[in-house]
Amino acid sequence: MPTLPGESVGTVEKQYHTFARPPQPLVLESGARLGPVTVAYETYGRLNAAGDNAILVAHAFSGDSHAAGRYPGETEAEKPGWWDFMIGPGKGLDTNRYWVICANILGSCMGTTGPGSANPATGRPYGLEFPMMTIGDMVNTQKMLLDHLGVSRLQAVVGGSVGGMQVLEWSLRYPEMVRAAIPIASTMRHSALAIAFNEIARQAIMADPNWRQGNYYDGDKPAMGLAVARMVGHVTYLSDQAMRRKFGRRLQNKEKFSFGFAGDFQVESYLRHQGSKFVQRFDANSVLYITKAADYFDAVDRLGGMSPPPSGSQARMKYLVVSYSSDWLYPTYQAKELVQTLKRSGQDVSFCEIEADCGHDAFLIPDPRLTNLLRGFLDGLG
Amino acid sequence: MPTLPGESVGTVEKQYHTFARPPQPLVLESGARLGPVTVAYETYGRLNAAGDNAILVAHAFSGDSHAAGRYPGETEAEKPGWWDFMIGPGKGLDTNRYWVICANILGSCMGTTGPGSANPATGRPYGLEFPMMTIGDMVNTQKMLLDHLGVSRLQAVVGGSVGGMQVLEWSLRYPEMVRAAIPIASTMRHSALAIAFNEIARQAIMADPNWRQGNYYDGDKPAMGLAVARMVGHVTYLSDQAMRRKFGRRLQNKEKFSFGFAGDFQVESYLRHQGSKFVQRFDANSVLYITKAADYFDAVDRLGGMSPPPSGSQARMKYLVVSYSSDWLYPTYQAKELVQTLKRSGQDVSFCEIEADCGHDAFLIPDPRLTNLLRGFLDGLG
Repeated sequence: MPTLPGESVGTVEKQYHTFARPPQPLVLESGARLGPVTVAYETYGRLNAAGDNAILVAHAFSGDSHAAGRYPGETEAEKPGWWDFMIGPGKGLDTNRYWVICANILGSCMGTTGPGSANPATGRPYGLEFPMMTIGDMVNTQKMLLDHLGVSRLQAVVGGSVGGMQVLEWSLRYPEMVRAAIPIASTMRHSALAIAFNEIARQAIMADPNWRQGNYYDGDKPAMGLAVARMVGHVTYLSDQAMRRKFGRRLQNKEKFSFGFAGDFQVESYLRHQGSKFVQRFDANSVLYITKAADYFDAVDRLGGMSPPPSGSQARMKYLVVSYSSDWLYPTYQAKELVQTLKRSGQDVSFCEIEADCGHDAFLIPDPRLTNLLRGFLDGLG
Repeated sequence: MPTLPGESVGTVEKQYHTFARPPQPLVLESGARLGPVTVAYETYGRLNAAGDNAILVAHAFSGDSHAAGRYPGETEAEKPGWWDFMIGPGKGLDTNRYWVICANILGSCMGTTGPGSANPATGRPYGLEFPMMTIGDMVNTQKMLLDHLGVSRLQAVVGGSVGGMQVLEWSLRYPEMVRAAIPIASTMRHSALAIAFNEIARQAIMADPNWRQGNYYDGDKPAMGLAVARMVGHVTYLSDQAMRRKFGRRLQNKEKFSFGFAGDFQVESYLRHQGSKFVQRFDANSVLYITKAADYFDAVDRLGGMSPPPSGSQARMKYLVVSYSSDWLYPTYQAKELVQTLKRSGQDVSFCEIEADCGHDAFLIPDPRLTNLLRGFLDGLG
């Protein structure tokens, strides 16, 4: 792992904000109503008096609000937040300057309301009674949280993968509020290939008899189906090259084939391990809802139809689009299409493809190039 | 579909040969014993008196011996054999000149002995008592069939994907018998990525409670798991570009999202359909055994250590390696590694990468370029 500058944000705490209580529920893009809504979030650094030094970090599909630091009582041996190498004093998102906030997305299972939350109408978990929601709905809940916290302006919204979709949605819904929009390893809309892999993950979950149409919260979880779903997802986050480097054809047990189905190759054990780990921490129904929101997301027409910002305006929104050369889930050609679309609608957009062989998940791996890119871009905003 | 030359082979018949009856069972590469072994096969054209105009076609993972023509009673409305556009009078594999034979591989479920066949020791289907077998074992059964049919020489062995592995294995085991070895869209060994997708398919099957450790032949089949396995496989046979062209983001029901999990996009319905179709025709345990044989296959050292054929020999074995530019399961770089390995061991090898956007399965799609390539190469053998 490369040495990256900066210090840890130290001990952090997960916080919660509940809103949209009936009879004023949140109206979702589908027209469905949902309330109350709780959003789990974490913050790092300090919001300044003007309320204009905030950076919103939007997490990916299976991420959570724990982007940096460690919870009370955790030691150095425990993993810090998922973007700990990026967020902290002196880091790419410098908490000496910025107040960084990360909120768990709607539909997830990490503290924010989702299909595993109690349905106030029944007192039992929603399951499939949870309304279908969109990337726009996720952004809406983030906006309501920021309103509550007194944040009037975002110096940046930054996120990778499904987080990048939220970034684009922010730039469309609240352009006057966003100084910089930074989608990383993301896309304006899913290709048929991306939809296909999401659908396979959903089918794997729904094929598990324990799934029981989503009503499994008082019994056995659809663990086998969820594990298979995760294995599929996990492979799409890697790359051929990274897998060759990491596993190749190495065997678990030296040089002997088992001539059985227990799994001979290290890559098999690794995938099974990823599957089991995911089952421990994630809710199968949340996978269904979030993958569907990602599949529905299509910002092409809206991004192409944006108004150009007033010319000469110092504060106009700037985009920084980042892609990875070995990302085959949201390949660079899709990032370039995004850049072209933004340019055609007169937006101020910078673009960088980072050469890296580790696939879609590259943004989750410490890399001074991304750190320097974000720091430099933020510095340049003035 | 492009117009390709040639006529149909007409009506064909599936034939069977049974051998390795106990007490002389087949000894497999693992050391396990298997017998009796039945091989289903079809032939097109006529074997000449010298017995030297035979071409063996090796089918892919889920293929069968029905490579061309139609069965008695089938009309033009029914699909002919899987390589019908390639095999017939005046076609790429010209049955006016050659006698083409295709045999169902060991471990399959299309007439050749596999895990769904009756275990003579119990009278019930083998299930997981079927011994693990290898690509070498498949080739062995093909050799025994050809011996039985009086074929002393193969003008060519040709096959795509797992069929290409059999081609390489033939060239290693019986180089004196093979005039031309033509692996198409294949590899010397699976990458970690290919193993990963196979393992996901296996896990999907074994996660289905109906799988019951492979003992499902007298009850419900592991249909859900097998369908998911097929969806995973199917996506790896396509390409991003082909899927964009074929499906894009088109919806099943015009312009409306369902906001449910029934499947909105055409690519979802297509995959589900592929999954269901496969369940009708294929055995889940056969998927386990054949994918494992493909994962085990590793011909790198053996191909690199081959003896160069006697120089000046007119009849020395020639290789023609064919890859497709959009094949990401067995990409062109792997075909090039194969070519380099063969060249280093002094083999006579030609190579062609066909530019096509339809992914790994391109060899199953009528294309005059492959037809002309095979015809020209066979003509050049003299």
